[in-house]
Amino acid sequence: MDLKYYIKDVPDFPEPGILFRDITPLLAEPQAWSITLDRLTQLVAFLKPDYIVGIESRGFIFAAPLALDLGAGFVPVRKSGKLPRATFQQQYSLEYRTDTLEIHQDCFKVKPGGRVLVVDDVIATGGTAKCAGDLVGLAGGTLVGFCFLIELTFLAGRDLLPPELPCLSLLTY
Amino acid sequence: MDLKYYIKDVPDFPEPGILFRDITPLLAEPQAWSITLDRLTQLVAFLKPDYIVGIESRGFIFAAPLALDLGAGFVPVRKSGKLPRATFQQQYSLEYRTDTLEIHQDCFKVKPGGRVLVVDDVIATGGTAKCAGDLVGLAGGTLVGFCFLIELTFLAGRDLLPPELPCLSLLTY
Repeated sequence: MDLKYYIKDVPDFPEPGILFRDITPLLAEPQAWSITLDRLTQLVAFLKPDYIVGIESRGFIFAAPLALDLGAGFVPVRKSGKLPRATFQQQYSLEYRTDTLEIHQDCFKVKPGGRVLVVDDVIATGGTAKCAGDLVGLAGGTLVGFCFLIELTFLAGRDLLPPELPCLSLLTY
Repeated sequence: MDLKYYIKDVPDFPEPGILFRDITPLLAEPQAWSITLDRLTQLVAFLKPDYIVGIESRGFIFAAPLALDLGAGFVPVRKSGKLPRATFQQQYSLEYRTDTLEIHQDCFKVKPGGRVLVVDDVIATGGTAKCAGDLVGLAGGTLVGFCFLIELTFLAGRDLLPPELPCLSLLTY
């Protein structure tokens, strides 16, 4: 199945000149959604993660079921002010603006130093993913890689990530 | 397994006087997370939904894997301005403030009139869930019920939802 068939191009969103890749048709088609998750699971299983970190909010859609498939825990990285207990914070600049992400300080306490995979729907400039990876380190996790449904290769986001770690993407544009 | 063991009470979040139920420890423990999803699946399977609607952003964590388990499509209901194509919009008042939710107008086009289950992590006053249910109707879906991990029964949120539809929750406080 060609999953790109279910991804819709939306010009000039969220700003003029940006071509947005809309994944909602992929998610709404049961077979396409199931195959997507299966392929992502196969792509990252060799990393044997203890935790899947999902980046708010579209990253949650992939990270939460990946954690189930891989027998891992799910840990959210969220926008500022959303997590209720003590957090580590880090600023990042993404394609359209600057913002702050947070992770709970004790998020890896079930298995301290555990292996952590960071997951998001898209890697664009890489700023969000790098920020999430930094937060994993601050919280005491062992970062083992990054996984994305879509990589916008012309933005070279992977160059911002630690070169020794795998950066895996299912679809590239 | 008593899943409440993994839910942490956080007083005065996000505002003084609010007792927040933090589900992140539940999600981070692989066995607890897996059992949670299994129980939610068992709770709602009889509704035979074609679509699972998840409410941004914690609702995504449950709705996305539920869709996979039930062979359904996943459809996001998002905060204003996040969905890239033509949407229906609806205002709602929730426990702490007023806001707008949106759904893609064509979100159910794979199976028009399909059976739709609305999912979120918590039902408090019910405003968010009611709004999402209204959006399902606007988009031409057949609303068949609501499902929550946690129901705050003292806020009587279910009274705001259509009385003829099942409102299912795994844990109550």
